Amino acid sequence: MIYLGIDIGGTSIKCGFVNEAGSILKRFALPIFPHEHQEDTIKRLSVAVKEGIQSFSFGPIQGIGIGCPGTIDSFCGVCTYSNNLKWSNLPICELMNQETGLSCKMANDANAQMLGEARFGIAKNYSNLVLLTLGTGVGGGLYLNHHLYEGNEGKGAELGHMVIKAHGRACTCGRRGCLEAYCSATALIRDTKQAMNKTPGSVMWKYVKDHSGKVDGMAAFECAKMGDKAAQKVIDSYIGYLGEGILNFINIFRPDAIVFSGGLSAQKEALLTPLRKYLEKWKYGFGGANAPKAELLVSNLGNDAGIIGAASLAMPEAD
Amino acid sequence: MIYLGIDIGGTSIKCGFVNEAGSILKRFALPIFPHEHQEDTIKRLSVAVKEGIQSFSFGPIQGIGIGCPGTIDSFCGVCTYSNNLKWSNLPICELMNQETGLSCKMANDANAQMLGEARFGIAKNYSNLVLLTLGTGVGGGLYLNHHLYEGNEGKGAELGHMVIKAHGRACTCGRRGCLEAYCSATALIRDTKQAMNKTPGSVMWKYVKDHSGKVDGMAAFECAKMGDKAAQKVIDSYIGYLGEGILNFINIFRPDAIVFSGGLSAQKEALLTPLRKYLEKWKYGFGGANAPKAELLVSNLGNDAGIIGAASLAMPEAD
Repeated sequence: MIYLGIDIGGTSIKCGFVNEAGSILKRFALPIFPHEHQEDTIKRLSVAVKEGIQSFSFGPIQGIGIGCPGTIDSFCGVCTYSNNLKWSNLPICELMNQETGLSCKMANDANAQMLGEARFGIAKNYSNLVLLTLGTGVGGGLYLNHHLYEGNEGKGAELGHMVIKAHGRACTCGRRGCLEAYCSATALIRDTKQAMNKTPGSVMWKYVKDHSGKVDGMAAFECAKMGDKAAQKVIDSYIGYLGEGILNFINIFRPDAIVFSGGLSAQKEALLTPLRKYLEKWKYGFGGANAPKAELLVSNLGNDAGIIGAASLAMPEAD
Repeated sequence: MIYLGIDIGGTSIKCGFVNEAGSILKRFALPIFPHEHQEDTIKRLSVAVKEGIQSFSFGPIQGIGIGCPGTIDSFCGVCTYSNNLKWSNLPICELMNQETGLSCKMANDANAQMLGEARFGIAKNYSNLVLLTLGTGVGGGLYLNHHLYEGNEGKGAELGHMVIKAHGRACTCGRRGCLEAYCSATALIRDTKQAMNKTPGSVMWKYVKDHSGKVDGMAAFECAKMGDKAAQKVIDSYIGYLGEGILNFINIFRPDAIVFSGGLSAQKEALLTPLRKYLEKWKYGFGGANAPKAELLVSNLGNDAGIIGAASLAMPEAD
């Protein structure tokens, strides 16, 4: 069985033919043009998909799955609103189905990735999972009782928009104190810049100079490893807030594991080790010794997570 | 089909024979003696249950369901730890089964109540639900994709122990800033007392004098209705924190409804109306106009919620 996974990003659309073992057999991609009309982009995509299918010789395609950023009505296959893409009320699945004749399912990109990780990734064979993407924002996905959980209209799992500090930092969503406002790469970069400005002698200045000249989400992590105190302070604060968020998810879900993806997850153990220490200190939330532990894992699907996750939306459910 | 529901509370155990329509056909109860050995309490319960079943003439009992406060391993039917009852590692289901020969299922009391509300209560026929009990503490239950969600070992849905204010008020669980530390009746009573001490002219002094002399969770609500400014300030703050918690659950779950139970839910519209206003102001969380709304409901099973919820644990799943 072959499925087409379509991973819509901010600047390009990546497509891949995925078999039922989660392997990508063939890929193609197309750019997103910022000023193109939204229906024209989908028209262009559907033509590319049709051509891709016609030139694909490994067998018939069972269905199409799409991961899309923004607020997605996964019940109707509509992109309700995407801030990055400037799309609204775009019936992507209907348009794709008209062009290709294939059934089409769509979900928020983080939700799709959650399903991919649970089916084929690091969290294979687990029952209850929480996914956090630590990138420009903080995205989330939930896999509960062996199923993707999306909530009403498929618009749930906005895990980055859980307030962890009432009356705290302003968030892009309009509320104050969201996890995203403290734990996205954007937030970490802001904190890093502030620490640098306060500490002219910090190693971070040299690090940034040697790395493109721009402060990124890696600077504080890397300089903390070198023993820079100002950088370590930034990381300690970051881990503290992320730890509070994780403890909340542990208390709410008692998941088997929390899976991290997105840019900052590339730090792997530099992220997970202090985070585990923080969770241990607070005893993995209410219940302390009585609470089952949750593993902390980093996605191993890497750049393919989007395509594989999207394709898995189109696959039949396991049970 | 008849099921026995057992609702274990802090001072008594309430039992009821419940039919598959959720009606209680017959009841009995027994006290909890504070210094009795935990196994002896369960032994006494199982004997009472056996006698109750023998004298019950409406048909055979299909199974037993138990709602118990504390950390419950619902997979194994063990009360892992209950702070109120001073029970630990008590294999209640096994002991009950030995005595009665009936299959037995147990869950945390709020989780059991969640199932009761979803099956027979105010939230019947909904797919995705969040239950919050606003009492001495803040308990929680989750009903997701038409099933009770309990998490690993059945120890999830500790919704009161979601931090909404990092580094905030100390909580009984050891963390700081939990929803429970701001929104339990205990917290409201503390805030009411503080406001009274700051405001000697507040109507709350007379209210308390006229009502048993003790400050309770109703005082601020009732005096705010009379126009007392100090009381209104207490309620505004309470609604603000509860609103932040609810918005978090809406963003995480996009549930069809949030169901309130516990002592403070008796305030009904005095609780729900300002809460709805708060949620509207913050646009029902991320997505604003694009997010599906969640209804706010108050449990209508009242004092029977515990028994009916417990019995529903023993009933076969709907699908």
